[in-house]
Amino acid sequence: MNALQERILRDGKILGGGILKVDSFVNHQVDPMLMDACGRDFAKRFANVGATKILTAEISGIAPALTTAIHLGLPVVYARKTKPVTMPDQVYLTLAPSHTKGRMVELIVSPEYLANGEKVLIIDDFLASGQTILGLARLAEASGSRIVGIGTLIEKIFEGGRNALSTLGVPIESIACIKSLDDGKITFVD
Amino acid sequence: MNALQERILRDGKILGGGILKVDSFVNHQVDPMLMDACGRDFAKRFANVGATKILTAEISGIAPALTTAIHLGLPVVYARKTKPVTMPDQVYLTLAPSHTKGRMVELIVSPEYLANGEKVLIIDDFLASGQTILGLARLAEASGSRIVGIGTLIEKIFEGGRNALSTLGVPIESIACIKSLDDGKITFVD
Repeated sequence: MNALQERILRDGKILGGGILKVDSFVNHQVDPMLMDACGRDFAKRFANVGATKILTAEISGIAPALTTAIHLGLPVVYARKTKPVTMPDQVYLTLAPSHTKGRMVELIVSPEYLANGEKVLIIDDFLASGQTILGLARLAEASGSRIVGIGTLIEKIFEGGRNALSTLGVPIESIACIKSLDDGKITFVD
Repeated sequence: MNALQERILRDGKILGGGILKVDSFVNHQVDPMLMDACGRDFAKRFANVGATKILTAEISGIAPALTTAIHLGLPVVYARKTKPVTMPDQVYLTLAPSHTKGRMVELIVSPEYLANGEKVLIIDDFLASGQTILGLARLAEASGSRIVGIGTLIEKIFEGGRNALSTLGVPIESIACIKSLDDGKITFVD
């Protein structure tokens, strides 16, 4: 069992509706040492995919994407959910359903930072339905870039995201892969 | 001149209205090596303030706060601007005017992660009017915590934030301190 799995068992809280609360070390309070270790782990797993840029979605993807970027020495871009005043008028924009927000959210990337020919490694906190990551993949493809890998801290395999992403044909790595949250118990894939 | 100042001169863009665009290395695309160097710098500057927790505001405060947290070995909490479903009903909430959004935004922290007696180091990307940081300070004080220092990547001294924060009576450190953006030219404080 790795450090993230141990931490999930110790501090994760099952809220019902398939929601796992990890606010004490990933989503609101962040454990920087754990996040750094996860970044090092992703860097190792994706050492040979030839990535030139890391892409994530604000907000909670930023921490794991940044530590991965530090260990791979690559720039990281986080898709914005609202367009800031500093962004040009012409952007890459897609919509993705947000499970926790119960509505569609925008994912926006400036063409300044996602150019034709990039090899993009997507890093995010959760892989659930995979819809946010598919949205990021659409942004990358719109820019003429190519996805070369997907890494998530926590995968809930019972939500089918891995299957939804399989059409992308790239390696998908999750540090903690959860089989079930049934009966108030967190069970990892062996 | 430090690495952040050099980068601002090279890649920063003056947009008018006192807005300095640093989207290519801080706010949308992040240079992880530069951010790590800034985190190391903050860790050194605040090595002796006795901080027990780092506090920042989503979204663009997360990167510098996280790298500072890595170098100080402290947990980091980022105030949310919308309340996620995982947060309890009872929270610390304050309002702060957002310069770039032109409206008030909420800053929300769960009492689970900001407890009585914490010594809080605030890290953020910009110090402009200081209103976001004052909001973070109110959240910390509401929880019975005490601010012990404030660090920002980029200070625009002509917006008066340092003066607004002086009542807090704590050290304020900025890595790049901008005196003027007049005439399309970025001038740092010596």
